[in-house]
Amino acid sequence: MSLQIGIGLAGLGTVGAGVYKHLAQNRALLVERLGLELVVRRVVARDLTKPRAGLAALPPASILTKDWRVLIDDPAVEIVVELLGGIDTPLALIRAAIAAGKTVVTGNKALLAEHGQEIFALASAQRVPVFFEASTAGGIPIIKSIREAFIANHIVSIHGIINGTSNYILSRMTAEPGLDFADALAAAQAAGYAEADPTLDINGWDAAHKAIILASLAYGFWVPADRVFVEGIEKISATDIHFAGELGYRIKLLAIIKAAATETGQAGGPIEVRVHPTLIPKTHVLASVSGVFNAVAVRGDVVGETLFYGRGAGQDPTSSAVLSDLAEAAFALRPANEQAPDAGADLRRRCYGFTPHGLYGACLPLEEIVSRYYLRLAVDDRPGVLAQVAGALGAHGIGISSVVQPETHDAAGRAQLVLMLDRATHRQVNAALAEIAALACVHPPGALLRVETFGS
Amino acid sequence: MSLQIGIGLAGLGTVGAGVYKHLAQNRALLVERLGLELVVRRVVARDLTKPRAGLAALPPASILTKDWRVLIDDPAVEIVVELLGGIDTPLALIRAAIAAGKTVVTGNKALLAEHGQEIFALASAQRVPVFFEASTAGGIPIIKSIREAFIANHIVSIHGIINGTSNYILSRMTAEPGLDFADALAAAQAAGYAEADPTLDINGWDAAHKAIILASLAYGFWVPADRVFVEGIEKISATDIHFAGELGYRIKLLAIIKAAATETGQAGGPIEVRVHPTLIPKTHVLASVSGVFNAVAVRGDVVGETLFYGRGAGQDPTSSAVLSDLAEAAFALRPANEQAPDAGADLRRRCYGFTPHGLYGACLPLEEIVSRYYLRLAVDDRPGVLAQVAGALGAHGIGISSVVQPETHDAAGRAQLVLMLDRATHRQVNAALAEIAALACVHPPGALLRVETFGS
Repeated sequence: MSLQIGIGLAGLGTVGAGVYKHLAQNRALLVERLGLELVVRRVVARDLTKPRAGLAALPPASILTKDWRVLIDDPAVEIVVELLGGIDTPLALIRAAIAAGKTVVTGNKALLAEHGQEIFALASAQRVPVFFEASTAGGIPIIKSIREAFIANHIVSIHGIINGTSNYILSRMTAEPGLDFADALAAAQAAGYAEADPTLDINGWDAAHKAIILASLAYGFWVPADRVFVEGIEKISATDIHFAGELGYRIKLLAIIKAAATETGQAGGPIEVRVHPTLIPKTHVLASVSGVFNAVAVRGDVVGETLFYGRGAGQDPTSSAVLSDLAEAAFALRPANEQAPDAGADLRRRCYGFTPHGLYGACLPLEEIVSRYYLRLAVDDRPGVLAQVAGALGAHGIGISSVVQPETHDAAGRAQLVLMLDRATHRQVNAALAEIAALACVHPPGALLRVETFGS
Repeated sequence: MSLQIGIGLAGLGTVGAGVYKHLAQNRALLVERLGLELVVRRVVARDLTKPRAGLAALPPASILTKDWRVLIDDPAVEIVVELLGGIDTPLALIRAAIAAGKTVVTGNKALLAEHGQEIFALASAQRVPVFFEASTAGGIPIIKSIREAFIANHIVSIHGIINGTSNYILSRMTAEPGLDFADALAAAQAAGYAEADPTLDINGWDAAHKAIILASLAYGFWVPADRVFVEGIEKISATDIHFAGELGYRIKLLAIIKAAATETGQAGGPIEVRVHPTLIPKTHVLASVSGVFNAVAVRGDVVGETLFYGRGAGQDPTSSAVLSDLAEAAFALRPANEQAPDAGADLRRRCYGFTPHGLYGACLPLEEIVSRYYLRLAVDDRPGVLAQVAGALGAHGIGISSVVQPETHDAAGRAQLVLMLDRATHRQVNAALAEIAALACVHPPGALLRVETFGS
C-alpha cells in the first residue's frame, strides 16, 4: 500500500466539490504518478446536507464539519486546502494552518492580493509551503511557469486576459455590432458566465487581484492595491467597439504588468501594474482569445515572447490547478527528520511559495504611467472644433497620430470625433481632458480608452 | 556568500553558449531567486579557440576542455549539462554522469526518443534526477506543464506545431500563393531558419522525436519510434496549399498524440502518435501560429483545452529552458544525509525525470489509426470518373463528405479532383488508394493529406 497524505478540504463550493470529485475519479492515475495517495480526511462546509454540483454523493458525514478548526486540530490533516471564498475566515484558517505547520493550498486571489505579504512572511518563518496556482487563470499553469520555468528571466512584460466574464461580455459586443453593455451582461448571466452580482468581474478588481499576484511573483515584492490602476468595462459602448474595429483594434479587459527598464536588459526601476479596457491590434494573438477563455502573454528577457491559453474559471479547470498544487505539496512533505533546519535550508526558500527579493520594489506613480490613447468626443459639427481639441492636447504635449470624424451624427445632431493619441502620461492626458471638457463645443459623454501596441 | 552549485557544461554550440552567457548576465537575479549560485566549473567544446555566437569572450582556458570525462572526474561538477548534439557521445556522457551520481540536464531530443527508456531506468536505479525541458518546444515549458501542472489529468490529446523550420516553410507557402516547396525551403535557409542539411526538420523526424517525448510523459511508457507514423512536408505543393485554403483549412506539420479512450473519461487502451502535414480549420487557434513559432495544445480530462505558445528554438529561448532545469536540479541537490534511502524515497520518484506507470502501454498499429483525409487526384476530364473513384472508396467503406472539381486543368489537360473523405483507418485508405491508382482515368501525382477537426 502506498503512503497516504491527509488533506483537509475547506470549502465545498464549485471548486471544492470539483477537487473532491476529481481526487476520487482520477485516484488511480494520481497514485501511479505520485507514488502516494491523497486522502481527504476532513471537509468543511457551511451547509452539511446541500447537494453539490458535480458530486453524485456528499462526502461521508463522519468527515464533514462546519468548523474549520477541526482541520487544524486533526493531526491526520497534513495539507489544508482553502477554497472558502471571502477574506476573514480564510485568513484565520491559513494563519492557524501555518502556525500548526500544515502545508497550505489556496485559490483565494483576493486574500493573496490583500494579505499575501503577511501570509508568505508567516510561511517563510514557519517553513511551511503555501501553494496558489488556482488563484490566477484557472487551469493555466501561469504561477508555475513564471516562478519556475522563467526563473532565469527578467520579466519584461505580462499582458493577460484574466477575467472570463469581462472577456465574454466584450466578445459578445464585438460579435454582435450594436449590442450594448447591459444586454451583453444579461446574456452572460443567462449563460452562467456572470454571477448575480458581477461587480468584481466587470469593475476590473477580480483581474486586478490576479495582476497583483502575477506582478508580485515576477518582480519579487508585494504590490500594494493602491498602486494598481484599475478601470472596469462598465462604460464600454457599442460605439467604441465599432470605432475600435474600424481602426483595426479589438477592445479587451487587459491586465498589463511591465518593468520598463528590462526592455534594455536592465533589472530594477519601478514597475507598473494596471487593468483597463484596452484597444489591441486585431492581428495580435490576444485579440483572438474569445468568450470565457483566459490567456496570458509573458515576455522574458531570455525566453522572448510566450503565451498561455485555457479556461480561466469553472469547476474542472480550477480543480486541475488545485490538484497540481496538492501533488507539489505532497512531494514537499518529507519525513520529519528532513524538515529540521539543515545546510540545505536556503535551497528550499522557493518552496514557501513566494521569494521576495530586492531587485525591484517600487511601482510607478499612477499619474506617471505612459500609454497611447483612443479619445472619442461628442462635438458640435462646425469648423474650428478639431483645432480647439488639438490645441488643448498640444498644450499638454500630446501628439495626435490619427483622426476619424465619421459623417454620422447622434440624436442631438452632434458629430463623433475619434482621435488616436501618441504616448503620454496619465497626468498629461487627464490635464488635457479637463481642458477639453471645458470647451463649449465638446459635450459629454465621451470615452477615453488606452491602446496597447506591444512594444511598437 | 551563498551556497554554490557546480555545473559542467558539455557543448558550446548555439545553446551551450547561450546558457553560459545568460548564467553570467542574469546571475544576480538567479542568486536572488534561488538562494544559491550556479557556477560553471568545466566547459567541454570540440574547438577550444573558435569564437562563439553570443559570447563576447570564451570561457577561461582553465575550465575549457575537449574531454567530457573531465566533467565526470571533477567532484566540483554536481550537475552535467549535455548540449553536445549527436547520440553516441551524449549517451556515454549521460551514462557516466548517472553512474557517478551527478544530476543531468539535457536538451537532446533524438537521444531521449531513442534511449529514454534506458536513461530513465538508470536514473531511477541510481536515484539521479534527469531534466530535459529544453528537448521539446524551446522556451515553452511544455514538459513541466504536462508532468507537473496536469499531473491529475488523463491527457485526452496533444496537438503540437513543434518544428519551427517546417512551420516557417508552410507559413511562407500560405502567405505567398504559388510559392513551391523548394523555393520556400531556400527562403528559410536564407533567413537562417533552416540548416544547410534540413533533412530531419522537413521529413518530420525532429518533430517525431519531440512527439515521442511528449507522448511518453503523457502516457507513462516510452513509445517506440517504429510505432510513430511520420510523414514530412517535402511533397506539399502550392496546389494543395491553395485547395486547402479554398476549403477553409491551413496546412501545418502537426504532431498528434491521442488516447482515444480518455475522451469518454476512461484511462488505458492504446494510444496513437503521429506527425504529418495536416489540414486544420483556419478558425482553430493553431492555424494562426505562423513562422518559426511553436505551439502545443493539450487537452486534459480535468483542465479541458489549453495552449502553450512561444519560440521553439534558438539560442535564447532554449537557454531559458536549460536554466529552468538547472534551477530545479539545484533545488533537488540536498545535503548528502538527505540523499540516503529513507521513508520518503517514493515521494521523489518524479524527481528522476520520468515516472513509468501501467495505465497505458501500447500504441495503436499504424494501419489502425483513424483520420479524415484530403485526396487530390489528377483525372481525365470525362463523365464517370467521379463514379469510379467514389466506387473504389465505397468498396472500402470510406464515405465522401465533399467534392471539389475546379474548372481549371493542368498542362496535360487533366482535371483536378479534390475529395474530403470521412473518418477511415490508414488501412482502408491505403487499400482504396491502391485501387484508385490502378484506374485508367487517374494519373500520378496526386496527394493524400490528413485532416484534423479536433474532436468534431
